[in-house]
Amino acid sequence: MKKEAMELPSFSSILLLLLCAFTLAEVESVYFPGIYQSSLKKNGKTVKPKIPYKSQYFPQVLDHFTFQPKSYKIFYQKYLINSQYWHKGAPIFVYTGNEGDIDWFAANTGFMLDIAPKFHALLVFIEHRFYGESMPFGKHSYRSAKTLGYLNSQQALADYAVLIRSLKHNLSSEASPVVVFGGSYGGMLAAWFRLKYPHIAIGALASSAPILQFDDITPWSSFYDAVSQDYKDASLNCYEVIKGSWAELNSISANDEGLAEISRHFRACKQVHSINSARDWLWEAFVYTAMVNYPTEANFLMPLPAYPVEEMCKIIDGSSPQSTKLSRAFAAASLYYNYSQTEKCFKLEDETDEHGLSGWNWQACTEMVMPMVVTNESMFPPSSFSYKENAEDCKKQFGVAPRPHWITTEFGGTMIEQVLKRFGSNIIFSNGLQDPWSRGRSVEVINFKYLEIL
Amino acid sequence: MKKEAMELPSFSSILLLLLCAFTLAEVESVYFPGIYQSSLKKNGKTVKPKIPYKSQYFPQVLDHFTFQPKSYKIFYQKYLINSQYWHKGAPIFVYTGNEGDIDWFAANTGFMLDIAPKFHALLVFIEHRFYGESMPFGKHSYRSAKTLGYLNSQQALADYAVLIRSLKHNLSSEASPVVVFGGSYGGMLAAWFRLKYPHIAIGALASSAPILQFDDITPWSSFYDAVSQDYKDASLNCYEVIKGSWAELNSISANDEGLAEISRHFRACKQVHSINSARDWLWEAFVYTAMVNYPTEANFLMPLPAYPVEEMCKIIDGSSPQSTKLSRAFAAASLYYNYSQTEKCFKLEDETDEHGLSGWNWQACTEMVMPMVVTNESMFPPSSFSYKENAEDCKKQFGVAPRPHWITTEFGGTMIEQVLKRFGSNIIFSNGLQDPWSRGRSVEVINFKYLEIL
Repeated sequence: MKKEAMELPSFSSILLLLLCAFTLAEVESVYFPGIYQSSLKKNGKTVKPKIPYKSQYFPQVLDHFTFQPKSYKIFYQKYLINSQYWHKGAPIFVYTGNEGDIDWFAANTGFMLDIAPKFHALLVFIEHRFYGESMPFGKHSYRSAKTLGYLNSQQALADYAVLIRSLKHNLSSEASPVVVFGGSYGGMLAAWFRLKYPHIAIGALASSAPILQFDDITPWSSFYDAVSQDYKDASLNCYEVIKGSWAELNSISANDEGLAEISRHFRACKQVHSINSARDWLWEAFVYTAMVNYPTEANFLMPLPAYPVEEMCKIIDGSSPQSTKLSRAFAAASLYYNYSQTEKCFKLEDETDEHGLSGWNWQACTEMVMPMVVTNESMFPPSSFSYKENAEDCKKQFGVAPRPHWITTEFGGTMIEQVLKRFGSNIIFSNGLQDPWSRGRSVEVINFKYLEIL
Repeated sequence: MKKEAMELPSFSSILLLLLCAFTLAEVESVYFPGIYQSSLKKNGKTVKPKIPYKSQYFPQVLDHFTFQPKSYKIFYQKYLINSQYWHKGAPIFVYTGNEGDIDWFAANTGFMLDIAPKFHALLVFIEHRFYGESMPFGKHSYRSAKTLGYLNSQQALADYAVLIRSLKHNLSSEASPVVVFGGSYGGMLAAWFRLKYPHIAIGALASSAPILQFDDITPWSSFYDAVSQDYKDASLNCYEVIKGSWAELNSISANDEGLAEISRHFRACKQVHSINSARDWLWEAFVYTAMVNYPTEANFLMPLPAYPVEEMCKIIDGSSPQSTKLSRAFAAASLYYNYSQTEKCFKLEDETDEHGLSGWNWQACTEMVMPMVVTNESMFPPSSFSYKENAEDCKKQFGVAPRPHWITTEFGGTMIEQVLKRFGSNIIFSNGLQDPWSRGRSVEVINFKYLEIL
């Protein structure tokens, strides 16, 4: 593989570009942290896209895989399109939308735009069903498992296939090669799309896409071990201060007085209802900061300094050893939440985007079961994972149980390098080297030989 | 490709073996003739399998692609297993069952059995959902589109994936390579399974699998042109007699007297209700005979002589030019229906296997839309195909409309050689050279390079 990469020197520069410029990420739930939700939490402001997009709505079939009368229901799937760079016959770059408004992903995606002029590419961003405006049952889409049942990755991939084929037909551009792009869950979708629909997409670029974070392919502790390692690499003291802060937080009583104290201490805009809010608030700061610990666009969007883990640790290492570990962890987290120094207080308990949240929770409770644990080696409070408990929780929340081994049955994952060497090409998995998702990543670069258009 | 084939001489001999020995075929409906239905019509007798199989029943999920509460319903999927040749760790050969009882396919499959001892292979035949005993809603499975909605190829492929994975796990044989086999629709499933589940099957052997008989990939007239060409190749006179027989049949009045005449003429066991019965009876004889026009096991099972088209044409060419074309066509067709000369009369109107028939009709009316026409160049009465009329007919019959472009969206087909050259390996498509399906076939042999176990 190395030999091939060397024969095609342009690839390594593209990979470098990827690592530097292409971070799309997002996502959510305690167990699958991404940037989309986090960015919304931090600043609810609408980010302006760098180039203008036209919004379109495609009549999409509700259920591609059954033929009951109700499977034929049509809903309108949103997609964005920009043809300013496009020459007819040139490639079509498609962002395979993930769990959120497609406008957000269009506004926060760099690499596709950067290379579009060079390839005279058409740019298309397709919204994932059940997110943003693409609601199959309108306001009732999230009502119950009966409606949410149609929210899953296979249906989403089929949506993309049908939409892309129709779009190419309408543009009389059947011969244009399609390359799919995505980050985080959207990156998984891009990789899986190339695997399942090689006749539609000639290649995929999957950024921070932990397609191996299922079953027991990747050790369950990898993600939080990697986050912790990033902090340890920056400074052992920093790691130890954060690791010690949780016990101090737990020692604060959960009565009114304790909640008032913690709210004051954390400069909360409103008094919190639970100590957990402060814990989650800290937790998110450390995890998400590790995820963007290289100078990417995401940092500017967040906004954060370059190498923010190092900056956080400088704050911790520079503060008085007499102050509590908790207050020093708080000071570090403030960098993440208030780098611009314009926040007067912090929203420790958020009231954001219920759709996005419960949409991902639904997916995590059905197919996207990505077991993660926190061991005592990490700097976070230990936590375990049990299929049984997870199933019980999901059953309680949504009325249906997860299918925890379905994703690896449908998309594979075990011995992926061997499978893709024999069968598959043109999939690039990119990760920042310190990105904690990189441990659940796939092989870095696979089978260049037929990657013709890049 | 040729070069690779030459480097691996064993492949060409395997291909030869395939062409000679491996014909599994079957299927049905006017537009998708196969051998399974036909064989059942000809002799309702149960064929005995050559080796004994154990019947097993696997708890299968009703709907793999939605997560509604009712998607989780379990039904019992039948599969057959024989381990007499198996050494643990050796390959697992799986027949991806098509539209009929799995016992029939197990009894009529040769090649898998022939090579199993050499590879110490485990033999598994999995029944397709909604056929045989594998009925998700028991007796009510065929009640309406609400139940039949779950009968389609994607769900069937997912069934195979789940079952194979579970089987390997239970046998502690995760490392055993799986090769899938199938003929006709089962051959399509085998090829598609390798395409969609390369992490589960290392290779596929698809016999007489017309995966290009969709959309406008293959000319709609190809199949019947090919059948007609087989007869023309045998004898121009034979072709012309058959071609002229339909007009003579049509000239017989459809009143009681005409029906009595035709029933007498065709030695019907019971008087027919329509002239069409006689037409369909003749039509089937000529089509199915062309499909097995090489000395395969299928011929022996049918039973038929080797090269039966030539034999039919000898009958026609040898009969008196004074006799009607219709009577000479009838004499030729009798070879197909009565090679053993044990039939005292013919069942022109059949009362067979309603399940098999309407199951395939359902599939043909939803996803398996394979447009075929009969032109005046062929020896059959011309007929046309219209998406609109087909949709209306299907809507009337089942309450839902076909999705005629779905199969090519889901599985591809257009420019398949180019797609598979870039992405895909270890799929062998085999056809008899005179098999009319061969025109809707895929490339003969694709990408040998990773085919390791054969």
